[in-house]
Amino acid sequence: MDVCLVGVGAVGQGFLRAVQLKRKHLMEKYGLEIRFTGVADSSGALYSPGGLDAGEILEQKKATGRIADHPSAVEGMTGLELLHEAEYDCLVEATPTSITDGEPGRSLLLEAMNEEKHVITSNKGHLALFYSELMEAAAEKGVELRFEASVGGAMPIINLARDTLSSCTVESIIGILNGTTNFILSRMASEGSSYEQALLEAQELGIAETNPAQDVEGTDAACKAVILANAILGRPCTLRDVRVEGITGITPEAIELAAQDGYMIKLIAEVSGEKLEVGPRLVRTGSPYAVDGTLNMATLRTDLAGEVTAVGRGAGSLETASAMLTDAVSIWRNRGL
Amino acid sequence: MDVCLVGVGAVGQGFLRAVQLKRKHLMEKYGLEIRFTGVADSSGALYSPGGLDAGEILEQKKATGRIADHPSAVEGMTGLELLHEAEYDCLVEATPTSITDGEPGRSLLLEAMNEEKHVITSNKGHLALFYSELMEAAAEKGVELRFEASVGGAMPIINLARDTLSSCTVESIIGILNGTTNFILSRMASEGSSYEQALLEAQELGIAETNPAQDVEGTDAACKAVILANAILGRPCTLRDVRVEGITGITPEAIELAAQDGYMIKLIAEVSGEKLEVGPRLVRTGSPYAVDGTLNMATLRTDLAGEVTAVGRGAGSLETASAMLTDAVSIWRNRGL
Repeated sequence: MDVCLVGVGAVGQGFLRAVQLKRKHLMEKYGLEIRFTGVADSSGALYSPGGLDAGEILEQKKATGRIADHPSAVEGMTGLELLHEAEYDCLVEATPTSITDGEPGRSLLLEAMNEEKHVITSNKGHLALFYSELMEAAAEKGVELRFEASVGGAMPIINLARDTLSSCTVESIIGILNGTTNFILSRMASEGSSYEQALLEAQELGIAETNPAQDVEGTDAACKAVILANAILGRPCTLRDVRVEGITGITPEAIELAAQDGYMIKLIAEVSGEKLEVGPRLVRTGSPYAVDGTLNMATLRTDLAGEVTAVGRGAGSLETASAMLTDAVSIWRNRGL
Repeated sequence: MDVCLVGVGAVGQGFLRAVQLKRKHLMEKYGLEIRFTGVADSSGALYSPGGLDAGEILEQKKATGRIADHPSAVEGMTGLELLHEAEYDCLVEATPTSITDGEPGRSLLLEAMNEEKHVITSNKGHLALFYSELMEAAAEKGVELRFEASVGGAMPIINLARDTLSSCTVESIIGILNGTTNFILSRMASEGSSYEQALLEAQELGIAETNPAQDVEGTDAACKAVILANAILGRPCTLRDVRVEGITGITPEAIELAAQDGYMIKLIAEVSGEKLEVGPRLVRTGSPYAVDGTLNMATLRTDLAGEVTAVGRGAGSLETASAMLTDAVSIWRNRGL
C-alpha cells in the first residue's frame, strides 16, 4: 500500500515510527507492506515513486524540524501539490485541527477522494464541520474514509461500534473524550489544588497547551462528540449543534463535596438521538466513568449488549498512530470485498 | 445463513430472541438472514430444511422447558444426531460448560467442523481444555471457529484484540473475568458484609449459583484466562497450567484496610508470556480495574496503543447472545475473503 503522509507533527511522526516498528508484524499477519511515496509538512514535501525511507524522514524532522531541509525536498510544496505529483493508494492526513474552516485537512481529503484514493485521518476539524460532505465524497468515489484516531486517540471507539458490536444498535454514547481536562480534574481531586494550579501543572508536564482554551472550554470534546454522533448514531450534526460547557468554573470545594458522597466531577460528553452536549457531571466512584489521569473512556449503550465501555490513552504520538495503522490494516483487509 | 442451535438454556434462548429482535437490522445493514434449520436441547431435537420459527421454539421452552414436547420434535435426539440430519452452514453451540472433558461441546464442534461448517460457541470448557485441537480442526477444514461470547459475555475482548487493535501486538491481559465474584467483593466493600452474607445475597439475586464453587474458587475465570492466552497471545496452554486462588478467604477487614489506602480487592486474571494466574489483588480506586457489580473488564497492554480496556456485562442471556450474533455477522462479512 503506497501512502502519502501529510502533516508530520507528533502524530505524523508517530505513524512513521509505527510503520517502522511493525513492518514485520504487518507483513507476516496481513501481507501488508506500507510504503511512503510522499510526505509533506508545512515547510515542503518529498516524494519518490520507489518509496521513501521512514527513518530518514524522522531524522530530518529531528534535526531541523523541516521536511524542506531534506536534500531531495521541494521547499514550499504544499500537501495539496504533493497529492498532484505523488503516486499513492492512501492519504494519511495528520495536519493540525482547525475548527473554523477545517483546512487544510478538508481540501486534502476531498482531493485524495476525488482521485479515488482511500483516506485515514487523525484530524477532527473537517469531520466536526463537514462530516456529511466528506462521507458523501467517499461513498461517491467508492473509497474508504477512516478516522479512528480522531476520537480518543488509542481508545478504540468507532471501530468498536462498527466491527466489534456489529450485531447491536448503539442508542447513546457517554464518555470522557478529553484527556487534558480529565488530568486537571483528577489532580484537583487528589491534591485538593485549584483549577489554576492544576492547569499550570498540566502545562508544565506538556499535557495542556500554552493556550488551553480548546481543551478546558470543551471545544475539543465537542468536536469528538459530533464525530461520534455522525459516525456511530448516524445523526447528522456539526460543531454548532453542541451545547458546550467547560471546566473553568469548577472549584476544589465542589470536587470535595462530591467526593464526600462517593462521586467525582468529570467533563462528560453525551450523544444520543436527543442529546448532544459536553459539560461537567457527577459520576459515581466504581463506575466505568471514574477513570483518572489523561485517560479517555466512552460507554456505548446498546440494545442487545447493554453498556459496553472502552478506555484508552486519548493522546500520545505512537498511541494515536496505532489507531491510524489499524485503519490501514482494515482498508487492506477490505480490499477484496 | 442456515444455523443449527444446540443448547437452549439462557444463552441459547437469548440467541433466538436476538435473531428475532435484529432480523431487520441484520438484513438492512449486512444483507444477512439467519434461519434456524435445527435446534436441540437435552430433551430432543427439532429440524426443518425450510427453517423453524424462533418464536415458536421460545414459546415451547417457556411452556414446558423441553424441545421434545414440541409436536414435530424427535424426543431423545441428541445434538450430535441433529448435526447428522439437519442442513446448516453454521453451528451455534451453547451447551453447558464441562471442565472435565469439555463434552458435549467438544464433539459437537469437531463434528460440525469436520463437515466444513462454521462454528460459534459461548462455551468455555472445550476451549479451555482442547484449544489447539479445536483450532487446528478449523484451520484444516478452512472454517471459522468463533467464541467471543465465551469470555466476558458482552464485553468485547477477543474481537477487540483481533480487529480493533490489529496494528498492535498484545503483550499481556489483566482483567476481572468473573461477574459473580466481582459482585460479592463489591457488596463486601460497600456494605461491610462478610463473604458468606454477600454470597447469600448473590444467590438470592440469581447472580451466584446454588453451588458457587466454579465462580468463587476462580475456575471460571481461569478457563477464560486460558482462552485469552491462546486466542490473543498465541500461547498454547490449558486449564491445568493456571495458578488459581479464589475469593473464599477474603475478609471484610482486608477490604476495609485496602479502602483506607485508596484500594479495592478484586479477583484478577493475569495472562502474559510468563504469567497465567487468577487470584485476589489490590487495584487502585480511579483505575480501569476499579469497576463494581457484576461487570467484567480486561486491559490489554499493547506495544503501540499502550493500555486499552474494555468493560461490559459478563453475563446475561441477551448480552451473551449479542456476542454470538456479532460473530455470525463477522462470519457472514468474511465469506467473500
